Amino acid sequence: MTHTPSPSVTPAKRVVDELTARGQTVSVAESLTGGLVSAALVTVPGSSSVFRGGIVAYSVELKKELVGVPGEVIDAHGVVSGEVARALAEGVRRRCGTDWGIGTTGVAGPESHGGQSPGVVWLAVSGPDDEVARRYRFSGDREHVHAASVERVLYLLDGLLHASSATESD
Amino acid sequence: MTHTPSPSVTPAKRVVDELTARGQTVSVAESLTGGLVSAALVTVPGSSSVFRGGIVAYSVELKKELVGVPGEVIDAHGVVSGEVARALAEGVRRRCGTDWGIGTTGVAGPESHGGQSPGVVWLAVSGPDDEVARRYRFSGDREHVHAASVERVLYLLDGLLHASSATESD
Repeated sequence: MTHTPSPSVTPAKRVVDELTARGQTVSVAESLTGGLVSAALVTVPGSSSVFRGGIVAYSVELKKELVGVPGEVIDAHGVVSGEVARALAEGVRRRCGTDWGIGTTGVAGPESHGGQSPGVVWLAVSGPDDEVARRYRFSGDREHVHAASVERVLYLLDGLLHASSATESD
Repeated sequence: MTHTPSPSVTPAKRVVDELTARGQTVSVAESLTGGLVSAALVTVPGSSSVFRGGIVAYSVELKKELVGVPGEVIDAHGVVSGEVARALAEGVRRRCGTDWGIGTTGVAGPESHGGQSPGVVWLAVSGPDDEVARRYRFSGDREHVHAASVERVLYLLDGLLHASSATESD
């Protein structure tokens, strides 16, 4: 990664500001990041008008029951996969009735998880006309994997927001 | 408050260690703290065996739909109340099938919310034989109210865990 890390409040603030300007909302389903994406959004004053809520789902049961991730998707692709990240983003978006949904799954370490080694992360964003899932491979310890994942998934949403505003005159 | 604040990782680690020793689990329903309690637990290595998941429910609808807080409880007592804090803790404990549940509601500020002024916080813990809700009045900015609430609710659970282990030979 050649990217210079910046404080995660920066992408969080960019996202909150853009959603506020649009009158749109976001929700978050976190496995890997366990509440850190929600927490980054909540630290931004004014976030309560755009951030409706989120679900932290570590276990497979909660991914299915709370977020509505289909069991077949987990069985077929494994819990650390683009399909599960996307199903988390879509599921929480539907459950919370928001315009945008964020999903995170991966291995913070130090142990492997779901057949994947530490640092392997799938991040996803689901929106009105958008759906993206991207694989990352972070080095560093648990704390770094968490922080990098929070930052990246917020940049992912930020990018989609600005890409879609550029084409809204179509 | 005469209490000297310590890093919130300390009570989080105490809680994770004690739950691990007991083979028990915890889940979290956060309104006020928006994912920060979950995030504090997740930063502790080994937490994934005791922390099953959580729900961030800012809106009244999500408190009802995702956590199962009864609408009558919100109507009768207001969203910032001991009854709602307790219903969040009980609800998430039931939804996630954990031994312990944590609930937070309150006003981070700068604006008032639910008829309460900034700094007013209700924190609750629900357990196998325990139920506690406590009112706090924190001063300081949004960030301080969040951090103090995370710390206090983890100490609240820590206290109950140690209190109940002292009487388990009954």
